[in-house]
Amino acid sequence: MAMASTSKLLFIFLFSIFIIDSISSYEQHPLDPLSPEELNLTQTIVKDSFPYSNNTTLTFHYVGLDEPDKSLLLSWLSKPTNKPPPRRALVITRFNKQTHEFIIDLANRSIISNHVYAGYGYPTLGLDEQTEAIQLPLAYDPFIESTRIRGLNLSAIVCSTFTVGWFGKIGKKRVVKVQCFHMNDTVNLYLLPIEGIQMIVDLDEMKIIEYSDGFQVPVPNSEGTDYRLSKQKPPFGPRINRAAIMQPDGPGFQIDGHTIRWLNWVFHLSFDAQVGPIISLASIYDSEKHKYRSVLYRGHISELFVPYQDPTEDYYFKTYFDCGEFGCGLSAASLVPLADCPNNAVFMDGYHAGQNGKPVKVSNVFCIFERHAGDIMWRHTEFGIPDELITEVRPELSLVVRMVATVGNYDYILDWVFKPSGSINIQVGLSGILEVKATTYTHSDQIKEDVYGTLLTDNTIGLYHDHFFTYRLDLDIDGVDNSFVKHNLVTKIVTDNTTARKSYWTVVSETANTESEAKIRLGRKPAELVIVNPNKKTKPGNRHGYRLIPGPTARSLLLEDDYPQIRGAFTQYNVWVTPYNKSEKWAGGRYVDQSHGQDTLAVWSLRNREIDNKDIVLWYVIGIHHVPCQEDFPLMPTLSSGFELRPTNFFERSPVLKVIPPKPVTWPNCSASP
Amino acid sequence: MAMASTSKLLFIFLFSIFIIDSISSYEQHPLDPLSPEELNLTQTIVKDSFPYSNNTTLTFHYVGLDEPDKSLLLSWLSKPTNKPPPRRALVITRFNKQTHEFIIDLANRSIISNHVYAGYGYPTLGLDEQTEAIQLPLAYDPFIESTRIRGLNLSAIVCSTFTVGWFGKIGKKRVVKVQCFHMNDTVNLYLLPIEGIQMIVDLDEMKIIEYSDGFQVPVPNSEGTDYRLSKQKPPFGPRINRAAIMQPDGPGFQIDGHTIRWLNWVFHLSFDAQVGPIISLASIYDSEKHKYRSVLYRGHISELFVPYQDPTEDYYFKTYFDCGEFGCGLSAASLVPLADCPNNAVFMDGYHAGQNGKPVKVSNVFCIFERHAGDIMWRHTEFGIPDELITEVRPELSLVVRMVATVGNYDYILDWVFKPSGSINIQVGLSGILEVKATTYTHSDQIKEDVYGTLLTDNTIGLYHDHFFTYRLDLDIDGVDNSFVKHNLVTKIVTDNTTARKSYWTVVSETANTESEAKIRLGRKPAELVIVNPNKKTKPGNRHGYRLIPGPTARSLLLEDDYPQIRGAFTQYNVWVTPYNKSEKWAGGRYVDQSHGQDTLAVWSLRNREIDNKDIVLWYVIGIHHVPCQEDFPLMPTLSSGFELRPTNFFERSPVLKVIPPKPVTWPNCSASP
Repeated sequence: MAMASTSKLLFIFLFSIFIIDSISSYEQHPLDPLSPEELNLTQTIVKDSFPYSNNTTLTFHYVGLDEPDKSLLLSWLSKPTNKPPPRRALVITRFNKQTHEFIIDLANRSIISNHVYAGYGYPTLGLDEQTEAIQLPLAYDPFIESTRIRGLNLSAIVCSTFTVGWFGKIGKKRVVKVQCFHMNDTVNLYLLPIEGIQMIVDLDEMKIIEYSDGFQVPVPNSEGTDYRLSKQKPPFGPRINRAAIMQPDGPGFQIDGHTIRWLNWVFHLSFDAQVGPIISLASIYDSEKHKYRSVLYRGHISELFVPYQDPTEDYYFKTYFDCGEFGCGLSAASLVPLADCPNNAVFMDGYHAGQNGKPVKVSNVFCIFERHAGDIMWRHTEFGIPDELITEVRPELSLVVRMVATVGNYDYILDWVFKPSGSINIQVGLSGILEVKATTYTHSDQIKEDVYGTLLTDNTIGLYHDHFFTYRLDLDIDGVDNSFVKHNLVTKIVTDNTTARKSYWTVVSETANTESEAKIRLGRKPAELVIVNPNKKTKPGNRHGYRLIPGPTARSLLLEDDYPQIRGAFTQYNVWVTPYNKSEKWAGGRYVDQSHGQDTLAVWSLRNREIDNKDIVLWYVIGIHHVPCQEDFPLMPTLSSGFELRPTNFFERSPVLKVIPPKPVTWPNCSASP
Repeated sequence: MAMASTSKLLFIFLFSIFIIDSISSYEQHPLDPLSPEELNLTQTIVKDSFPYSNNTTLTFHYVGLDEPDKSLLLSWLSKPTNKPPPRRALVITRFNKQTHEFIIDLANRSIISNHVYAGYGYPTLGLDEQTEAIQLPLAYDPFIESTRIRGLNLSAIVCSTFTVGWFGKIGKKRVVKVQCFHMNDTVNLYLLPIEGIQMIVDLDEMKIIEYSDGFQVPVPNSEGTDYRLSKQKPPFGPRINRAAIMQPDGPGFQIDGHTIRWLNWVFHLSFDAQVGPIISLASIYDSEKHKYRSVLYRGHISELFVPYQDPTEDYYFKTYFDCGEFGCGLSAASLVPLADCPNNAVFMDGYHAGQNGKPVKVSNVFCIFERHAGDIMWRHTEFGIPDELITEVRPELSLVVRMVATVGNYDYILDWVFKPSGSINIQVGLSGILEVKATTYTHSDQIKEDVYGTLLTDNTIGLYHDHFFTYRLDLDIDGVDNSFVKHNLVTKIVTDNTTARKSYWTVVSETANTESEAKIRLGRKPAELVIVNPNKKTKPGNRHGYRLIPGPTARSLLLEDDYPQIRGAFTQYNVWVTPYNKSEKWAGGRYVDQSHGQDTLAVWSLRNREIDNKDIVLWYVIGIHHVPCQEDFPLMPTLSSGFELRPTNFFERSPVLKVIPPKPVTWPNCSASP
């Protein structure tokens, strides 16, 4: 970066400098997301293929890079002077109540394939159609009457769309439920539901096709629900002092287009409307072997299943698939400098196709920053050598790539954290607002039945639910052919008096030959789970590997044959391994809205394919059961979880032994503004 | 702090200023650790009680604050103008091969109790006697002969002490095993064991009482084992840029003696030779109730059980209890500014009694710093309100209290992390050096037997082992009488067609009445585990509580009746709850060296006492199975684990909603030194 050689600097909003830097000219990478120009071109090609179309009936539901064939890409990578794989777009549209699926060749401006999808399920909802749908009730007489009866102020009403799921009946129409809230003095609509009214909107017709007003429960009081700073009253606090990270040599990473280089890491970061951030081609430099070695071909969140646990009429269907139904990337929030990301962050923008197919820019969709959390990379104090005291310590440093997906009420913080030691930590944070149900109860002593949630305040129940963050991790440890090994920790009982011990544990390794052998429910059996390259060994003969260090997690508690669970069957296990298959990237399937669960990871895995010494994909499910508590009201403090991928006999030795500790920073003559 | 009003500052080594600040005059708190003066006084009183003693035979093995009776302390806290509880010391000494236990009254300079401990087990080893013991081999002819036969250089040999454990025979002597290493050109002794030689040293006699030289295995090559920067050769790296945290208003915490105030938290931090850092009287300010509310009466690591899994003659006994045998506080390392802790850290010193009873200072035994990790405290983007886009975000901030215990080869980073939201995160980090065994193997293909570890490099096996960090957490949620509630998450099957769902989960709460109902093996049943105050409810009627959010953990895999497991029986479960009992603070017992496991948490709990609506103590075991890998060689990158204590219906609502985001920091005119 230009800053390195400068010694007199204005330390204000460093990130604005880096943004400019980061969009400097670069050659397009085959894994780059579609550029605005490419999105425009795609739209034109697709639109032209519907000669009788008009703008109102052709809608775009997914436009993204059609990932190049892995073999083509790997071949190009091995010789980048060759022609890169062709740029192609995958497009899903609706036209005349039909779902069309296109593959577009961008260089040739041609349609490679175009077919109508006639199976169950519908594509991701568009943002525009949802905006339209939530306006319908406000002009719908029965609804107006319902609000009048309830004494509500129509101008304070905001509605939202809710996917309807699948409950055994075939959904022949692309519909959503619409439920409304009475904001009254706050912007925290979710805490103020209008109960009893059920509306179904046909999105293709864009009209309310079912309406019922079953019962009345007063809307809870809005007092104290607003979360905006401007609406808070004293006492404020706790009071937080100012702070900033200063990096006189600039950040330690460089961004070239979508390629990020940091210390010993290089990887590609792209944005996708369905899954948000995609990390590709993550490789780490091995200073002993003098080369970059591949770790992760492609990794991203694949689906986010959020089943609510209220089976009653107005709530039973709330079993969301946030990535498949709403788009985890479509739901990305623009990150706020100095709040969502620290002062030393660099931001990147993202583009997705609007419902009309035109590019929509999301500013600051990602941030990238070096985390100086005050952790220790490694250390040792040697007290054991007479007359000598040795202490060697290296402070930790990591690189964070962040996106936030705000799907309705919930804000999901999706972090990828890289460490110089070779670890990749995948972390999720949950914030935002609970989904609540209005009730007449004001005290738990009044409650004699199951209310499927926690009474949070007067008339407000925070509903029980889960979050299942399902990650797809196409690890390529030193090459594509890998195996999944369970190093089971097994107690050995000593019976022969050869030792004073009665027991010890040892490792009994087991390589999963097929998919069924790799399905794992964590917490059952102690084991180290490792993806290895069976063809590459260290000098002492250990297979190169990366191990999965699970965090706290959970599995779905629904019956396996319950409809939402059939659709979310990939949450029956925490770990899955599949052979690489380009089409298997979205764990809930390609058409998740109203899906019947026929195209999920669990179904793919039933083929029980061979996975030993193959190009394999690791799937990991971070599960969180959420029993709401009052602290989650009116806005949840972040709850975090995650897991680690850690090199295990990948290197011959610690790759961070030879890190030189950075010199201390000294800044004479700073004048801090008050 | 004095810095707040200063605008022109020299930002160099802020910590040095704060150290001075932090030892300003203050009134002694009843929970303060013994001061150097008190340690001296204690030594004098105890020494004087042995009129025939000479310095060589009276040794001090534990000197620490005898914690005031909880009732006395609470009564004083409720009226601090009253006289504080008397200052007392608990002292454990050896004299004439007997273990003596004293309670000393410091104000009256009197001995309150003095008795000889005649049970099994011995007190914590002294540092001086270990230093003496490891010199014995170097002057012991059979050992010299053994090294000569092996062609080793006596001046390159360093020995270490190893506790012998208990394996069914009564240990009538206070002995340790001594094993030696041939350093040869490195300081990384642990990687260079001299195999085949077994020595037992009688510590009371200070002589070698058993010696055997069984077999020979060459000492591994020392090349590449040294971890000191000065010994590294290129290529260095990865290269890390300079960075520092700048806080123009100074840190957000104040230290008054041992009391730390930070944002909405106040707590007391003391140092103990056995357990290291003790957090006491942690309370959080409730801005709605306008008062501090108690959370944690006292919390600390209680024992750290580290069983190795090699049952062979020279290794079977390696089943360490690091706090009880070696002293987690006695093993504290002086923290290195800018490496162990970031530039904005403040340091505190600690004192323990040396073997002669005189105070020994450990400089920088703790550091305290605000962590600006770039996390998000809470956020929400509201896309759902037509024609309005709302984003509110608060950056996270936490306060870290750190100590590092270096017990021989291992470095344990013990962090307490406080958050404004009320969470307390307890985190451990493992670094340092593996315990290895020399072997003739150089490639795993040669290995046809169980070698109880991983071949890390030529002739070097990293042995399988576990770490069980056992925390004692005397939570007092809004008062002393608390209950332990399991909110079991139970699948409900719908059979009556009242809903389209076939299943959902709900909460079935269960209060543990007795200790046996509170023993939990995590991963078996989904449940939220909450310590509640059944006598204090929120407005909606929820019991005030803090929940335990476990991290990844493990249980011991040894047979329950195996000797090490009898001594470490507190690792059979991850969670225990006991009624408060002043004497039950060290989970492995008071005399752990050669203990028979008669005084452990598991034994105390067999009484199956009532714990509902009582003053209760939560015990949590962080278990880590460690299968060494080559990256752990020659020095392990930190491996982290931990757990969270999180307010759950403790507050009426989010306690951080009204946090005002700090203003951005701007520093014009800084000149950064190159």
